[in-house]
Amino acid sequence: MTSAPLVQIAYPDWVHEHIDWQTPVAGELDRMRLALALARQNVLHGRGGPFGAAIFEAASGRLVSVGVNLVVPLHNSVLHAEIVAFMMAEAALGSFTLGAEGAPAHVLYTSCEPCAMCLGATLWAGVARVVWSATREDARLLEFDEGPVFPQSYRYLQERGLEFEGGVLRAEGRAVLQLYRDRGGIIYNG
Amino acid sequence: MTSAPLVQIAYPDWVHEHIDWQTPVAGELDRMRLALALARQNVLHGRGGPFGAAIFEAASGRLVSVGVNLVVPLHNSVLHAEIVAFMMAEAALGSFTLGAEGAPAHVLYTSCEPCAMCLGATLWAGVARVVWSATREDARLLEFDEGPVFPQSYRYLQERGLEFEGGVLRAEGRAVLQLYRDRGGIIYNG
Repeated sequence: MTSAPLVQIAYPDWVHEHIDWQTPVAGELDRMRLALALARQNVLHGRGGPFGAAIFEAASGRLVSVGVNLVVPLHNSVLHAEIVAFMMAEAALGSFTLGAEGAPAHVLYTSCEPCAMCLGATLWAGVARVVWSATREDARLLEFDEGPVFPQSYRYLQERGLEFEGGVLRAEGRAVLQLYRDRGGIIYNG
Repeated sequence: MTSAPLVQIAYPDWVHEHIDWQTPVAGELDRMRLALALARQNVLHGRGGPFGAAIFEAASGRLVSVGVNLVVPLHNSVLHAEIVAFMMAEAALGSFTLGAEGAPAHVLYTSCEPCAMCLGATLWAGVARVVWSATREDARLLEFDEGPVFPQSYRYLQERGLEFEGGVLRAEGRAVLQLYRDRGGIIYNG
């Protein structure tokens, strides 16, 4: 019955080759390098937009989930890398929030500044901090629209306790976007 | 392996009792009544937030998908009613956008004004128009935060062709929120 489909979301098989779930990652740059590696591999596998993400426990460095953009292969406009990472982290924890009382603080690392949808989702997912590599301006060069995000969007979220840091390993983040463009990747929703 | 879960999203069984997939619905009020009925039933079944949505083809009145809030039962902060409706519509169409060239215009009807995440998602989903019943102020009375949405958020989307109409059957929309509060429903992410 086409009107009542089942939506199933799983990591692409290749993701597992790039992830070590067991070893904590202490440094922020190394955590970002995982998000960037996933973004790059998503391009190289030709399966989706040039975006990757990873969620770590802030203090322990434990990897909780990852995400890659699955919009095109799964026919699902919601499945930006950050959204996949949120869903997978919550499924792993069996909780609708990563910010439950007594839970360790979680940080989202993403290869590109979040769009309006993903930025809104950070609040509901309960991450304490969001760190990105390439900026909105870098994405715009690729004609990816980031949606209605304004300076006061960040202020609104900061007032609710979220922290943000952008431009971490930015050159590497831009390089992934450029790689996608060079390979003629589809600019959906451009 | 808890670190690589499968996320599965399906309509709750009870949804099918309230839906007639075969008969087009011509009037906007009747389309909104479906979104409101789903919101109300989601409360009565005690399975999630007091929010419902439905996507129709604008001209034909064909029902394409519905959504109810599944955040709590599916441990997934992303699954607002609107997001579920987008995902299900795209799965039914086998496309990552409802706004493909030559496709009929689609309208999202939702029982409450969209939050920042869902508003951002409207652009990627490719709906032409968004209509809601209860407003952000009504939701705030229930202590549901709508996230960083500002007047210029709507202007940004309108400049990209989206149309918005709020407060349709607002009294009924508010009544569903009140029903949820009266039954002591959990105010997650309050």
